[in-house]
Amino acid sequence: MIELDDFKEVISKYKVIFFDAFGVLKTYNGLITGVDKTLAFLQQNNQDFYILTNDASRSPAQLAAYYNRLGVGSITPASVISSGMLAREYLSLKVKTGTVAYLGTPDSTCYIKDLGLNLLPIKDLDLNNIADINALVLLDDEGFDWNYDLSKTINLLRRRNIPVVVANTDLTYPVSKQQVAIAIGGLADMLETLVGKRFIRFGKPDAQVFIYAYEQMKNYPNVAKNEILMVGDTLQTDILGGNKFGLDTALVLTGNTQIEDAEVRISSTGIIPTYICESAVIR
Amino acid sequence: MIELDDFKEVISKYKVIFFDAFGVLKTYNGLITGVDKTLAFLQQNNQDFYILTNDASRSPAQLAAYYNRLGVGSITPASVISSGMLAREYLSLKVKTGTVAYLGTPDSTCYIKDLGLNLLPIKDLDLNNIADINALVLLDDEGFDWNYDLSKTINLLRRRNIPVVVANTDLTYPVSKQQVAIAIGGLADMLETLVGKRFIRFGKPDAQVFIYAYEQMKNYPNVAKNEILMVGDTLQTDILGGNKFGLDTALVLTGNTQIEDAEVRISSTGIIPTYICESAVIR
Amino acid sequence: MIELDDFKEVISKYKVIFFDAFGVLKTYNGLITGVDKTLAFLQQNNQDFYILTNDASRSPAQLAAYYNRLGVGSITPASVISSGMLAREYLSLKVKTGTVAYLGTPDSTCYIKDLGLNLLPIKDLDLNNIADINALVLLDDEGFDWNYDLSKTINLLRRRNIPVVVANTDLTYPVSKQQVAIAIGGLADMLETLVGKRFIRFGKPDAQVFIYAYEQMKNYPNVAKNEILMVGDTLQTDILGGNKFGLDTALVLTGNTQIEDAEVRISSTGIIPTYICESAVIR
Amino acid sequence: MIELDDFKEVISKYKVIFFDAFGVLKTYNGLITGVDKTLAFLQQNNQDFYILTNDASRSPAQLAAYYNRLGVGSITPASVISSGMLAREYLSLKVKTGTVAYLGTPDSTCYIKDLGLNLLPIKDLDLNNIADINALVLLDDEGFDWNYDLSKTINLLRRRNIPVVVANTDLTYPVSKQQVAIAIGGLADMLETLVGKRFIRFGKPDAQVFIYAYEQMKNYPNVAKNEILMVGDTLQTDILGGNKFGLDTALVLTGNTQIEDAEVRISSTGIIPTYICESAVIR
Repeated sequence: MIELDDFKEVISKYKVIFFDAFGVLKTYNGLITGVDKTLAFLQQNNQDFYILTNDASRSPAQLAAYYNRLGVGSITPASVISSGMLAREYLSLKVKTGTVAYLGTPDSTCYIKDLGLNLLPIKDLDLNNIADINALVLLDDEGFDWNYDLSKTINLLRRRNIPVVVANTDLTYPVSKQQVAIAIGGLADMLETLVGKRFIRFGKPDAQVFIYAYEQMKNYPNVAKNEILMVGDTLQTDILGGNKFGLDTALVLTGNTQIEDAEVRISSTGIIPTYICESAVIR
Repeated sequence: MIELDDFKEVISKYKVIFFDAFGVLKTYNGLITGVDKTLAFLQQNNQDFYILTNDASRSPAQLAAYYNRLGVGSITPASVISSGMLAREYLSLKVKTGTVAYLGTPDSTCYIKDLGLNLLPIKDLDLNNIADINALVLLDDEGFDWNYDLSKTINLLRRRNIPVVVANTDLTYPVSKQQVAIAIGGLADMLETLVGKRFIRFGKPDAQVFIYAYEQMKNYPNVAKNEILMVGDTLQTDILGGNKFGLDTALVLTGNTQIEDAEVRISSTGIIPTYICESAVIR
Repeated sequence: MIELDDFKEVISKYKVIFFDAFGVLKTYNGLITGVDKTLAFLQQNNQDFYILTNDASRSPAQLAAYYNRLGVGSITPASVISSGMLAREYLSLKVKTGTVAYLGTPDSTCYIKDLGLNLLPIKDLDLNNIADINALVLLDDEGFDWNYDLSKTINLLRRRNIPVVVANTDLTYPVSKQQVAIAIGGLADMLETLVGKRFIRFGKPDAQVFIYAYEQMKNYPNVAKNEILMVGDTLQTDILGGNKFGLDTALVLTGNTQIEDAEVRISSTGIIPTYICESAVIR
Repeated sequence: MIELDDFKEVISKYKVIFFDAFGVLKTYNGLITGVDKTLAFLQQNNQDFYILTNDASRSPAQLAAYYNRLGVGSITPASVISSGMLAREYLSLKVKTGTVAYLGTPDSTCYIKDLGLNLLPIKDLDLNNIADINALVLLDDEGFDWNYDLSKTINLLRRRNIPVVVANTDLTYPVSKQQVAIAIGGLADMLETLVGKRFIRFGKPDAQVFIYAYEQMKNYPNVAKNEILMVGDTLQTDILGGNKFGLDTALVLTGNTQIEDAEVRISSTGIIPTYICESAVIR
């Protein structure tokens, strides 16, 4: 049987904690009972923490407000790092003019607004009038009709050679204890195969989101990488990315990885967390 | 510049001709002008021909009727070999009882009816009542809501370990001179990646559809493989599959492969047709 | 715990048995004790059997002689079907003249000799004199220097657009209870990725080797597919290929699939054998 | 025809230039004639430059000495950023004790020496004595026997679940005008597929090497990303990685991308450089 580490002991060794959100702090049911105590404990001890999420469907402000409504006051917009922020940085540096087409809800455009670029949902795109489209951004799996708009997207990419940015690399996400839904990252993989082009993906396990968080830290650069712990529920994103960036990593068993298959998955993938803990809840 | 072979000379060397349908005999616009003469010429010379198609959305009888309406009387249901027929054979041999779930239109179920199995479209599936589902068949990209039914399909496959049959391996298909649509084979690739299981695919370039056609030939086994020519517009399906099965192959430039990029594609893929012809039309 | 089927009962239901060789009839240690009784039992009952192997390093005559030396007289060259035979058929139908370059031992060329083609090992190839090379065949992982000859092979394929035939699709093979070696199929995958071209692979799970065996059967076509059982130790080749061709399949646990992970692998791959038996030995 | 930008004009717009080495500053033949003038021009104008290379076979000091011998005095060890430096950082942060097994020459171990870890070439590894092996590093394609040591590596990874670090992501490298050789990155891909585990790769296009260079810059953080130009010959590494990190990029046509296929490749990959220049030589 797998031997579990005590989460309180583990986090006590680090100056800064990076948390994944889904499967670590919350589930489809809301906040995981007790994680508010963990965050309060960190705040008392002057240990900073940040939330690193591949969810680009809502803004940091919206995400922080969500936690605040659930009674977790310690999460502020400044403590949320989303892959959507990297998509925004990319566009601001690399796309100067014209129109950005997107797949996602109106809410998910929060990351790419106010850049001086026109935004156009794929559903409103006229395929006979695409000379002005200078980038495509995949933001969220909701907000469009897959039957029509995915084929429309392919036809756009066959005619315009433009950068395609994927703001969320997750393939699926849980919607109940038993069920998952296909995420925009899963649709992105299909589109990339069908058009044969390289998309630009932002989100864990890619190093860029860790660097972005690292440089946003309040005490940067006075915290070394080995003073930071990444806590996550998914080997392929949180743990692989944290390991590669040089952080210690803690796998928690409240989300994508269940206790009964943690060992098999670690051994079959070769992705090895520094610690394995039951949850991010302290006793 | 690429040197083209004369189609009439080429086909005159073979006893039997296998034709792909889309991009060879017809396009989104209907029959390619002049292919009726080619088929009449073959009939006069007692050269048999068969249509090998990855299209499992309509039955051989419906496909033959389509050509007959356009004035091509020489195409009969017996001369049409569809990947749907292999999906049917698989189910009849390997799934004895229970219910087969499917993605596709009611028309596309023609291949899997009358096998003594219940058929259930994914949209009518109750995920709490799946003990009786013994197979899933992907038939057509139409007839269901992608937003809902693709995620539903994933949830079925996470809970029931059943064979999944893909009756059409094409990734996209043309809907106009400029535009394509995502085919069920493209959706199948995404679903297979997301659930991490091996689906069973029928259709060119897989050998099984060529064998099926070979054994259906009127004069089988008195025709040798080197007396058969496969005519197609797609390197990855028609030409690769024909080559591997040991047939000579003719690429025509009226569909997926255009004259301006034929050479680059042959060289970059390493899929080499025996002949390259402008079209399947004889002068 | 997994429930095992009785092998004697299982094979008694079928007219013809197809056996994989490695991991089913033999291991790196020689014959699996007791399989000779199984084959004798089949012979007494007039049940035909054939060996379907992805091993193209030795000829059917050499393979049969190997079994005969171990006291299994019932295996004849005619009962051995190797993926090398399909490579031979391909060359005989599709490559009329010139030189065939190859990777493998001199023994492994048995399949491609006597076709009127010159044979040239890659190690003797002069890259300045390649106009006559009309095909490349990958036969065996032994007989050449990987450091030099694999890069040499890439350089040949960058300059000559020729068909590449892989006569063994296995990625690795066991050399002791604990250790494996990289097979020519594993090297082929690397070369295919590096040159970006489509190789032509023969061997299970591809349908073509099953059809070849099916048509070689003594009583063909008087045996139906559902009267044949495929027995193998590997889900991805023996079981997947047998299932797809429409045969019933029996997984034995004496090779690549061990009893402790059979269930997990069947469930995670979605490749489902009709039966699971401890071994191909009858009590 | 493709329109080329003037390299001198292009570089004059940026404060800092990042150069790829192979195919940009040098080839298998030595220094590209005239690039020394480019570097002298930059030095005169107080524009800093750095070399970002995926070559981990020699140390920055050895690489700088190589250029110095060719008369380019402006390249110092501090201006060379190699993917090997990231492999070193990873080991120093994540592997505290024990032995690191490696594939490569003795020279290539320069990056992983002096970390307090034992180093052991795979060829000296005893597979019966592996409890102490805590990581594997793939450094260089030379220095070992591929026939034996690649299979040995697989057997190590089947028994020890340890991190595997790839210090060079290139798949092949040119050895003459016509010929390439397989690089350690190509071998790494094969090994990763064969063992089914996730390796940790360092090198362009991954963001981490760009960040490492960015933070090593003399004037960091007083140079913004849009004041840096990445110059490279390879779309998939230099240009893709530079673009994603938010830098402007210049493709030069003296290495992997030739003028005659630049347009086709840009269009088929969707990797779009900001500029295309004949070479990194100024007139």
